[in-house]
Amino acid sequence: MLHFDCDYMAGAHPEVLDAIVRNNGTQTPGYGEDDFCARARQLIKTICDAPDADVHFLVGGTQTNTVVIDGLLRRTEGVLAADSSHINSHEAGAIELSGHKVIALPTIDGKISATAVNDYLRGFYADETYTHMVRPGAVYISFPTELGTIYSHDELKALSDVCRHYNIPLYIDGARLGCGLAASPDVTLKDIAALADIFYIGGTKMGALLGEAVVCTNKELLPRFFTLMKAHGAVLAKGRLLGMQFEALFTNNLYSRIGQHCVELAMRLRKAFEAQGIHTFIDSPTNQQFFVMPNSLIDRLSQYATFEYWGPRGETESKVRFVTSWEMSDDDITQLVKGLKVKS
Amino acid sequence: MLHFDCDYMAGAHPEVLDAIVRNNGTQTPGYGEDDFCARARQLIKTICDAPDADVHFLVGGTQTNTVVIDGLLRRTEGVLAADSSHINSHEAGAIELSGHKVIALPTIDGKISATAVNDYLRGFYADETYTHMVRPGAVYISFPTELGTIYSHDELKALSDVCRHYNIPLYIDGARLGCGLAASPDVTLKDIAALADIFYIGGTKMGALLGEAVVCTNKELLPRFFTLMKAHGAVLAKGRLLGMQFEALFTNNLYSRIGQHCVELAMRLRKAFEAQGIHTFIDSPTNQQFFVMPNSLIDRLSQYATFEYWGPRGETESKVRFVTSWEMSDDDITQLVKGLKVKS
Amino acid sequence: MLHFDCDYMAGAHPEVLDAIVRNNGTQTPGYGEDDFCARARQLIKTICDAPDADVHFLVGGTQTNTVVIDGLLRRTEGVLAADSSHINSHEAGAIELSGHKVIALPTIDGKISATAVNDYLRGFYADETYTHMVRPGAVYISFPTELGTIYSHDELKALSDVCRHYNIPLYIDGARLGCGLAASPDVTLKDIAALADIFYIGGTKMGALLGEAVVCTNKELLPRFFTLMKAHGAVLAKGRLLGMQFEALFTNNLYSRIGQHCVELAMRLRKAFEAQGIHTFIDSPTNQQFFVMPNSLIDRLSQYATFEYWGPRGETESKVRFVTSWEMSDDDITQLVKGLKVKS
Amino acid sequence: MLHFDCDYMAGAHPEVLDAIVRNNGTQTPGYGEDDFCARARQLIKTICDAPDADVHFLVGGTQTNTVVIDGLLRRTEGVLAADSSHINSHEAGAIELSGHKVIALPTIDGKISATAVNDYLRGFYADETYTHMVRPGAVYISFPTELGTIYSHDELKALSDVCRHYNIPLYIDGARLGCGLAASPDVTLKDIAALADIFYIGGTKMGALLGEAVVCTNKELLPRFFTLMKAHGAVLAKGRLLGMQFEALFTNNLYSRIGQHCVELAMRLRKAFEAQGIHTFIDSPTNQQFFVMPNSLIDRLSQYATFEYWGPRGETESKVRFVTSWEMSDDDITQLVKGLKVKS
Repeated sequence: MLHFDCDYMAGAHPEVLDAIVRNNGTQTPGYGEDDFCARARQLIKTICDAPDADVHFLVGGTQTNTVVIDGLLRRTEGVLAADSSHINSHEAGAIELSGHKVIALPTIDGKISATAVNDYLRGFYADETYTHMVRPGAVYISFPTELGTIYSHDELKALSDVCRHYNIPLYIDGARLGCGLAASPDVTLKDIAALADIFYIGGTKMGALLGEAVVCTNKELLPRFFTLMKAHGAVLAKGRLLGMQFEALFTNNLYSRIGQHCVELAMRLRKAFEAQGIHTFIDSPTNQQFFVMPNSLIDRLSQYATFEYWGPRGETESKVRFVTSWEMSDDDITQLVKGLKVKS
Repeated sequence: MLHFDCDYMAGAHPEVLDAIVRNNGTQTPGYGEDDFCARARQLIKTICDAPDADVHFLVGGTQTNTVVIDGLLRRTEGVLAADSSHINSHEAGAIELSGHKVIALPTIDGKISATAVNDYLRGFYADETYTHMVRPGAVYISFPTELGTIYSHDELKALSDVCRHYNIPLYIDGARLGCGLAASPDVTLKDIAALADIFYIGGTKMGALLGEAVVCTNKELLPRFFTLMKAHGAVLAKGRLLGMQFEALFTNNLYSRIGQHCVELAMRLRKAFEAQGIHTFIDSPTNQQFFVMPNSLIDRLSQYATFEYWGPRGETESKVRFVTSWEMSDDDITQLVKGLKVKS
Repeated sequence: MLHFDCDYMAGAHPEVLDAIVRNNGTQTPGYGEDDFCARARQLIKTICDAPDADVHFLVGGTQTNTVVIDGLLRRTEGVLAADSSHINSHEAGAIELSGHKVIALPTIDGKISATAVNDYLRGFYADETYTHMVRPGAVYISFPTELGTIYSHDELKALSDVCRHYNIPLYIDGARLGCGLAASPDVTLKDIAALADIFYIGGTKMGALLGEAVVCTNKELLPRFFTLMKAHGAVLAKGRLLGMQFEALFTNNLYSRIGQHCVELAMRLRKAFEAQGIHTFIDSPTNQQFFVMPNSLIDRLSQYATFEYWGPRGETESKVRFVTSWEMSDDDITQLVKGLKVKS
Repeated sequence: MLHFDCDYMAGAHPEVLDAIVRNNGTQTPGYGEDDFCARARQLIKTICDAPDADVHFLVGGTQTNTVVIDGLLRRTEGVLAADSSHINSHEAGAIELSGHKVIALPTIDGKISATAVNDYLRGFYADETYTHMVRPGAVYISFPTELGTIYSHDELKALSDVCRHYNIPLYIDGARLGCGLAASPDVTLKDIAALADIFYIGGTKMGALLGEAVVCTNKELLPRFFTLMKAHGAVLAKGRLLGMQFEALFTNNLYSRIGQHCVELAMRLRKAFEAQGIHTFIDSPTNQQFFVMPNSLIDRLSQYATFEYWGPRGETESKVRFVTSWEMSDDDITQLVKGLKVKS
């Protein structure tokens, strides 16, 4: 059986695993105060060209979004986000559990525009009753989005400008940041660091066993963040485990290599599907590919491959998602596509 | 340098690490729905003699306490706990962040008694104004306690009886459960499962990289617990990592062996210290040993060993804590003690 | 100057005020345990034909919505509500501050339909990932809505049926319930009590100084509600003040009389406006009337009357709201309309 | 039957009620933006000699404590308070519901000392693990305390100095402030305003129907406080009701007169009791008086008077509380004492 459900189905990339195994016996202090974390922080700050940034390691995406947003917002503030965003739909109300509202904005291709954000903010302050309303206290976007799409440099710049104009932080969820960067023609990690106030470099979906690295270039935003992490149960006693992995991910360009690998496989998969007349319903340049397929083909593929059902499209077709990951090879794509050709 | 600061300073026990490495390439579903987790759950239910229990895997101790207690309590309920308990002192207010009060009870040797719990509960309901007060909705104890002490079977039974009389759950924090069981003359894992309504088997401090296994024998207490975990950011995408480790820990009695090893080393350490006239200030039978030492000796030991400073005791002495762990050997104790003998 | 901004601009209806003054010196227990509250509860249960209901008195609308919804929902549950609803827009995030998500549904004329609720609930449970999502735990509607519209008996019945089918409570915000009932051809207070699981009878906007009466016909929904009120700061020490007012409001049909008075004035106002060619943009049968007016007319009216600006409508017109209240008389309408006639 | 249970058993002082009745028909804007509130704010700022203070009107004591403390604290901060304080014992966990810990300090005569606060704060920052702990973010005291006692000017000054040294706000709960000031030989309202960063002037227990006036002399502590009040359901639509009452309370020294009246009656009551050999167990100079009585006497008094049972004292005696209030007269005391004399 081939697995294209998602990008967290195997363990760690061998170079990441090797770091864990190699250093297993070394004794270090706990809670992220070890040398592995220190070196990983330094590598990240260097590659981001953000020498003064704070770097924090957390365990998973929902946890990171929850703790960061809880840190960014004050009471009665909310976060502007795409209505289809993970925090609004699939984190079980984690933001609200922390006392904050997700203010949902409509999207185009999974993205929210600087115009939409600006309109909301201008409208908010123009409303005479705004002191009775939740104040927008941060803007959240994903790069790539839930639909695999990515913001252009111009789009990011425009969002960043709006946020700075209104003096609210821009926070970028980079669960699959490596794939976004590999796919982008004009956005680099340095751009992300320069345009966002805070973002996270996803590890879990990019070859780590677990772990996300929060980079905060605007340090005053998150005073006493360690204690907030602790109160949210987000501090790992053996924090070294996160440091070791991020050190490996940012050694010998591993993080970039994984992103490129995933995107290349995804493009090959897409091309092969399109050659068989199977088309995407959203133009994603990253490792998530979304197709419309006849239900009969879905049944046939399901006999030897797993992927995600994304909902019906009329009576005889459905939408599906295929995701590529570090552990897949050209061979997996070849085998997957072979089944397509018999006759669709 | 020798390290006796705590029991989370190295990575994973070799048998645990081996399970992670061996299964790294296997693809599985996420979020704990994999076969590793399924097998680990089964092993735990069997060893606990609790075939109908629910078993959930979480990442760390503070997270586990927070999510479990948030699940157990309803609005305006609080948790009874030792004033010296971890949740009351060193979890950054995680319980309160979830909206609940820690109702602190006085302790003897780090333990709360059934009598103290009973008195509180009887007094609460006898108070005419009790509807204006936080209702005690759960009892939290640690086994072993923060001071390394353990409850006897009779003491646990009495606590359990009080809780059942008042129909509130007894929750046992087992961060170092393996050491507690290894040290106890009369408490087994089956007893814990029978007397508590819910408890957790600590992994992080007992040889895992990370991970705690919550065992809930009274399943109605925690409906929809997965969603609550998710909302607290406590679900691991690659949940298999926890399943693999707990499967290893409960294969070939590894969990027991680690507990015994830690306790044996601790007893050897204690005996050697006492032979040199250095005495404990609390009688701990587990892997945390607490001594009173002349400050001059502390200075001398600090040159080749790390351990935890626990506060002053008069002008010339101080209290210190030494902790043994799976990665230490007889040789570490021998070397540590050697330095003592020169002349204290 | 005439005031049509809202229905809380004066004090209490004379019959309500008289009750407060008349009983001022009487000593009673606090916290709503007095005879005035007891009698008011009885009057309300009788008029609702709900002898077994629980009746609680709170101070204001936002407070009532917050405490009731916090009581109805468990962790990780949210409340379905109109996107234009008060709890979603103008209560400063009170529901989220309590840890719960407002799940916004689209509206027609300010109302949500049973179909929309049913579709959401069916879709939720059909979604394979629903354990990662906020569970809809209650449905909130207003009667009348924010736009002055009211649900027909059939519409309420259909909503009630959906809620009972999915076993989630229907909660009705009755801030202006008296006006809704006065305007409705087929909904009575008994119907509200029979179709909702819980609702509140608004006092503040219906002639009281302050106060809302929560009626809960499904008592198991809100165990220990007094303590929850207390924890939210929603218990009045001199709770008698609320009892006295609701006793007055439900003596000699005062509550109905106030509702009828407000609605009659509103209809007179509307007819007079329409006679001058000024039309409503929403067909409200209650005491809130929404018109489109030339900006020049707004300027002229503003010289002798206050009312609420509701937003622009093209370049030369705007939307405005006029609200009638217990303290207004035919004479106020006459004077208001006089100014219209000069020439619009 | 005579009532000495508490000081919120009757309605409003006649001068307060008269203001409500006299102004009932006047129309004003809502939410505290009316002229009554404006004038009351000005009167309070003047009498406090705090021309730049912010004054906010809330409804009740628990609500005020909850909203103020929620405004003062950031995430993972707690409030230092007496273990016997209202917020720690009788507000149903309101502070914790807002996510904050009450850090209980031991008391002497219901008071916490500057030394105890200083020791806690010094110890906190000296603890190497303090980032794992709840940070003390405010100090809460009551004036008078739950036991009727009052802080001297020196005691208040010392507390204020410690707070300013550690840069955390001192908040004074003045539910019965008028009685405290009437009883104090050396503390004035101006002193309270100068030594506290924020405090509230209690109305409910001092002759109002309801209402507490928060005075914040350190305005940066509570940005956007109106919205926070709204989110906590603590904004009254007819906010004028609070303005009218506080305007009356601070006109013609009514607030002082009520305080003096209560204290004088309390002193008369105490003297009369002591003359009969009934002694206090705490030396309270304010309107709450605490006595030890033979149970037989309690039974006899209970036949014609109500008062609060405060717990047993040995086998044959108990502790009781008598409270005086604005609506009581010399005659009530005379009648109460008459019953004592028959023979105790």
